[in-house]
Amino acid sequence: MTNPSAAILLIGDEILSGRTQDSNGNFLARALYAHGIDLREIRVVGDVEATIVTTLNALRTAYDHVFTSGGIGPTHDDITADAVAAAFDVALIERDDAVAALARNYKNGVADLTPARRRMARVPEGSSLIHNPVSGAPGFTMGNVHVMAGVPAVFQAMVDGLLPGLAGGVPLLSESMRIHLPESQIATPLAAIASAFPDLSFGSYPFIRDGKFGADIVVRGVDKAQISAALERLREIIS
Amino acid sequence: MTNPSAAILLIGDEILSGRTQDSNGNFLARALYAHGIDLREIRVVGDVEATIVTTLNALRTAYDHVFTSGGIGPTHDDITADAVAAAFDVALIERDDAVAALARNYKNGVADLTPARRRMARVPEGSSLIHNPVSGAPGFTMGNVHVMAGVPAVFQAMVDGLLPGLAGGVPLLSESMRIHLPESQIATPLAAIASAFPDLSFGSYPFIRDGKFGADIVVRGVDKAQISAALERLREIIS
Repeated sequence: MTNPSAAILLIGDEILSGRTQDSNGNFLARALYAHGIDLREIRVVGDVEATIVTTLNALRTAYDHVFTSGGIGPTHDDITADAVAAAFDVALIERDDAVAALARNYKNGVADLTPARRRMARVPEGSSLIHNPVSGAPGFTMGNVHVMAGVPAVFQAMVDGLLPGLAGGVPLLSESMRIHLPESQIATPLAAIASAFPDLSFGSYPFIRDGKFGADIVVRGVDKAQISAALERLREIIS
Repeated sequence: MTNPSAAILLIGDEILSGRTQDSNGNFLARALYAHGIDLREIRVVGDVEATIVTTLNALRTAYDHVFTSGGIGPTHDDITADAVAAAFDVALIERDDAVAALARNYKNGVADLTPARRRMARVPEGSSLIHNPVSGAPGFTMGNVHVMAGVPAVFQAMVDGLLPGLAGGVPLLSESMRIHLPESQIATPLAAIASAFPDLSFGSYPFIRDGKFGADIVVRGVDKAQISAALERLREIIS
């Protein structure tokens, strides 16, 4: 059985302009890895409805899950809900459960819901809500697309609530070994070990620290004994 | 005249597994913004040649420039050069100028070039080299695709060398204003101001700090006077 596949779609001009360093992608990547969902792709696009629609349709047909971040707030540049409805060709409607979730966040409840705030209660017809314990305004799941907020505290809370309900696969095990040599010195034996253990994957992640070259060798697989054996082989070669 | 368009393609399993928080995308996004190149999309894919080829071909036909990061080192999982050659349907060849660039980095020059190191001198036929002042191994430009290393220090040095040689456009001006109110309270007037200044773009980037909601309103455009006028209008509404 293979693990479910997934893509992340980060939506926001502020990431493309460099104003914001995204952290939601990395947070979710780690969570998916631990949950046994295989993240295959991350994309970042701007606040352009046609682009979001095209990208959503490409990703939702290619992968089991699509997770989005950003563009579900109350301002004019928050167009993700509109884009998801358009991608699925369904209506975007204000729904009672979404209004109620939103209203809980305000002192006077529904009486405090200005038109701008009510924008955040619009969800595509047929979707289910994703709980937002931080600020009320819900995310939603439409088909295999999970739509969440861009603010990291809200995004993380939504992911923490959402993931346990999604079927996961077998989480990969991984072990790593740090080598204080340029990776070119171990490339040939590493490739030989990789061939000898076809069920494992071997990554070499070079770094430069204090002017010295090194690399982290990461071995991944489902069999702990195999991983240990591969690392032992590597250790013999290095020493 | 519109600015040249661009996409960034980050290549590496370690980003998708969450092991690495990418910083190259943000570094380059800021550099492109300052240079007047319009970044439209960022993608992250894993170390899978067929995926890299398909993605490269989609991006290089859609945008004026594609910048890649990762996968040009000496180990078996470094397959970006192979993928670029396949995408352009040209041969991957070891070239004298690439060998010379690489050799300069080693004490005994070419004599120190093991087969693993020589891998890093293979470039697609017809490409030009991108200088690597940090560790010798060059990047390359093939058509409109600029291929650079994943190690941030090397990536940044390559970008710094590459960008001045690419035609830029008019850098957008931007000014921002921090609002210590939930963005829902300014959404309606903000939308009205955005309509009144059609040549400017208005972004609202919410945050939560110490349990309080706020937003940074960012106004972008090419006319400084217009930007100031829009912010002044916003200031009047808030106060």
